[in-house]
Order: sequence, then C-alpha cells, then structure tokens
Amino acid sequence: MSGEEITSSANPRVKAAVALRDRKDRDTRGESLVDGAREIRRAIAAGVELVELFMAPGMITSDDAQSALAAARARGARATTVSPHVLARLAFGDRSDGLVAVIRTPPTNLDRLVLPSRALVVVAEAVEKPGNLGAILRSADGAGADALIAADPRTDVFNPNAIRASLGTIFSVPIASATTPATIDWLHSHHIAIVVARVDGTVPYSAADFRGSVAIVLGSEAHGLAGTWSGPATQAVSLPMLGIADSLNVSAAAAILLYEARRQRSSS
Amino acid sequence: MSGEEITSSANPRVKAAVALRDRKDRDTRGESLVDGAREIRRAIAAGVELVELFMAPGMITSDDAQSALAAARARGARATTVSPHVLARLAFGDRSDGLVAVIRTPPTNLDRLVLPSRALVVVAEAVEKPGNLGAILRSADGAGADALIAADPRTDVFNPNAIRASLGTIFSVPIASATTPATIDWLHSHHIAIVVARVDGTVPYSAADFRGSVAIVLGSEAHGLAGTWSGPATQAVSLPMLGIADSLNVSAAAAILLYEARRQRSSS
Repeated sequence: MSGEEITSSANPRVKAAVALRDRKDRDTRGESLVDGAREIRRAIAAGVELVELFMAPGMITSDDAQSALAAARARGARATTVSPHVLARLAFGDRSDGLVAVIRTPPTNLDRLVLPSRALVVVAEAVEKPGNLGAILRSADGAGADALIAADPRTDVFNPNAIRASLGTIFSVPIASATTPATIDWLHSHHIAIVVARVDGTVPYSAADFRGSVAIVLGSEAHGLAGTWSGPATQAVSLPMLGIADSLNVSAAAAILLYEARRQRSSS
Repeated sequence: MSGEEITSSANPRVKAAVALRDRKDRDTRGESLVDGAREIRRAIAAGVELVELFMAPGMITSDDAQSALAAARARGARATTVSPHVLARLAFGDRSDGLVAVIRTPPTNLDRLVLPSRALVVVAEAVEKPGNLGAILRSADGAGADALIAADPRTDVFNPNAIRASLGTIFSVPIASATTPATIDWLHSHHIAIVVARVDGTVPYSAADFRGSVAIVLGSEAHGLAGTWSGPATQAVSLPMLGIADSLNVSAAAAILLYEARRQRSSS
C-alpha cells in the first residue's frame, strides 16, 4: 500500500491531480478524475486504467467504497493515503466516499465503436454541460443503448462532472466523440436511420419507428441542431409541448425518446 | 421608474434581496428571487406579485428582457436601477438578462389545487435538489400535467434555483407542497389513482393504465419512496434498467412516465 499519509495540498502528486480539474490539463495528459466509490468501481470493471488512487482511510465506510478499494488493489493501482482535508481538495461532488482516482482517459474514436445489428444509438450534439451528458448516459445505460456519440461537443466527454453525473455509466456505455459531419457519415455508412428531435418536427415522436438500427439525435439547449441534420435519410420528430415552454431539458428529451425506442423494441 | 442607480452592494434594499438566497429569509419573509427575463415574464403572466425589480439597463438587450421589463412596468412594479456589478451580486444563474425580481412566494396549500376530471398529477417526494424539481416541472409543463405536489420536500418549492431550472414553468404548473400522509389522503379523497415508480415495481410502466385520473409518484434519489406509498390503491411500476445502474435520475424517470401518460391519453 501507500506509505505515509499526505497532509498537504501542496504535495506535487496532489497538485498534479487537482490540476486535472482544468480541461487543458486533462487534454494534455490524457487523464481525468473520478470521484466516488461506485464510479471508480465501474471504471475498473470496464477495464479503464487507474493511474493513481487517493484515499482517506477514515472516510472509507460504505460497502461501495470498500469494494472499490479492494478492486483497485486487485488491479495493482498505486494507492496514496491522504488526509481528509487533502481528499476534500481532490473531490468533485458534494458527497464523498473517501476515494478519488486518476484514470487514463479511454479513447473516443468513432471507428472503435462496434455495434450489434438493430443498434440503438444516441447522438448528443454540442452538449455544453457535463451534467447533461452524464444524465443522458444514465438514461442510455438504463434503456440499453448500444452507444453514445458526442458530436461537436463543447465539453470534454470524460469531464469529471460528466463522470460523476453518469454515476459511472460513462464507462459501460460505448462512447465516441467526433465532428457532426464525421458522425453523419459514420451513421450513413453503417446504415443507421437518423431520428432528430426538433421543436418543428413534423412527426410525433411516438409515431416514428425506432425498431431498426436507429440514432436518436439531440441538439444543444441553447442552439438546437445544426442544419446538417436534415435531408431524406433523416426523420424529424417532435415531442408534444402542451404548456408554456417550447422545449424540454435535453436530458429529459433523451430519456423520453430512448425509452420510447425501448418500449417499441420490447413489444415488436 | 427608478431614480438613481445603486452602485453598492451594501445598499439596504440590495442586501435585503441578496438575503433571499437563504431559505430562512425566504420562509420568514414569504419572498423569493427570480433571475432571468423569461422567468420574470412567466411569473407576471401567472399573476405572481412582484415586490421589486432590479435592473441593469445596459445589460437589457434581448427581446425577452425588454418585454419582461415592459410587463413589469405595466404592472406598476417598483423598479430599481443598479450597476452591472450589483446585478451580478443579485443574479443566480450563469447567464444574465440584466433583470432580477423579488416576488411574493405564491401559496402552496394542497386545498388550493383545482383539478379537471381525468387529472394528470405528478408527486415528487423528498426532493432535495432544486434543480431536479425545476427539471420535473419543465417536463410536467410539456406533458400538460395538471399539478405537481412536492411531498415532504427537503427544499423550499420556490427556491430560486428551482425557479431558474424550471425556466419559469413553476409559475404556470399548479403546485402544492404537503406532507406525504396529507398528500396520500388528498389523492384518495379526490379519487386519483396512484402509480409509484419503484425499482422493484411488479408492472412494467408501459403496461400501467395512465388514462384516468392518476398521480405519478417519484421518490428521492437517495432514499426511494416512503413505505406509506403502498397498499391496494397503489400500483408499483418499474422502468426497465438494462445496463449496469439500478435507477434513473429522478427527473429522467418523471419525463418518461409523464410522456407515457400523455401518449396513452392522446391515443385513447
């Protein structure tokens, strides 16, 4: 295990980990931070490389945290004991399990995705808020989606807040990041039908057919979808908006469409 | 209009408004803060009393902000001009429209709710995060729900962050707050069927009948639903969880169930 307890946030390894809160550091080093026992366990289960594990032993009380620690040890991860104060500096969320990990960011090339026949894919374009990306991943995991593609993302996919909001499902749902044109090309070449959610969509979403290979495409809250998501191979569907607002939260729209696809697939 | 521009956050009226960030002050004074043009417009449209409007004229550039200001003036609200610096102290969100309002918090007694026949109600129990409450309200608005009841809430319903996350739909969706026992009594006495979403629910949600008067009940993420939500008049439904996680985000679950209810009602 770890040797001495680190009690100062000025420790170089602690500083290097804290620096991963900045996207620039994450991009340069190809690493990110995972806060939380469940999230760390899910990263390990998915085969993600643990660079380092910081732990505050007195805070490791939950079963989840103990099994995350055991899994990390079994993988031979370098574990570093820190004081509760130092762990608080490293932690991201408002709850703490006493564990924060540095991981090697998994690759997100589109050409790594391997899909089954009748694939269910969700595409989130220009997502800005890591919390929204994480929430969409949770619904994608629950609905059994085969992949999530972040098209022209405005956040890095493995942003610590996206990892946290996904509860670690970011490690189990196959995920890729690409430009919008590359995403469209890839969907076409894989014969995946495109269903885009638009305020002005002409078909009610529940009348669309989600039973074949299909990608559900969601735009950013601020800007909607790029104009390139149109054309004959693309069906624009709408969600009923019966109140005063003209759109749903993007993660609510994703949940509704993913579960409608799941419902149709189960009953077909 | 306003007279002089206030340039100091130490101004007593500014301080009194900033104090409304604390729940204790909101509860004591029966007031809350509304940040954002769209939200303020929707409060006014719903007949909510504006106690005061703070504005930084140079920041009021959007059509939304100009129409909110015009509506507030038409209602005779006291408008106070502040510097951009002071407005930033008052504002809650990360975007700013140059307007922040103090409102009289609308009443939330259960007995004020007036429902149509075949009512669609959503009950959120023990909600902790104002952002989740706001997100549920947006979906309730979109799906045309007739009311939202916050049962045993752990946040105040008109928390500024709930107002913000709801994009102001909190003012148009009829809303009440009550204890869980009072909520159950009220639903029973109004002959509203109860459908609770539970991980161990025996009926798949899409097999439940949402076409009559029905309340969709969602528990907190941390603790699930209280045991009191059971018994013969209550149907427990589950959402398929096909991945590694065992539950959805509460606002995702709300969106799926509300739109399933809407789908069934449209096709019946």
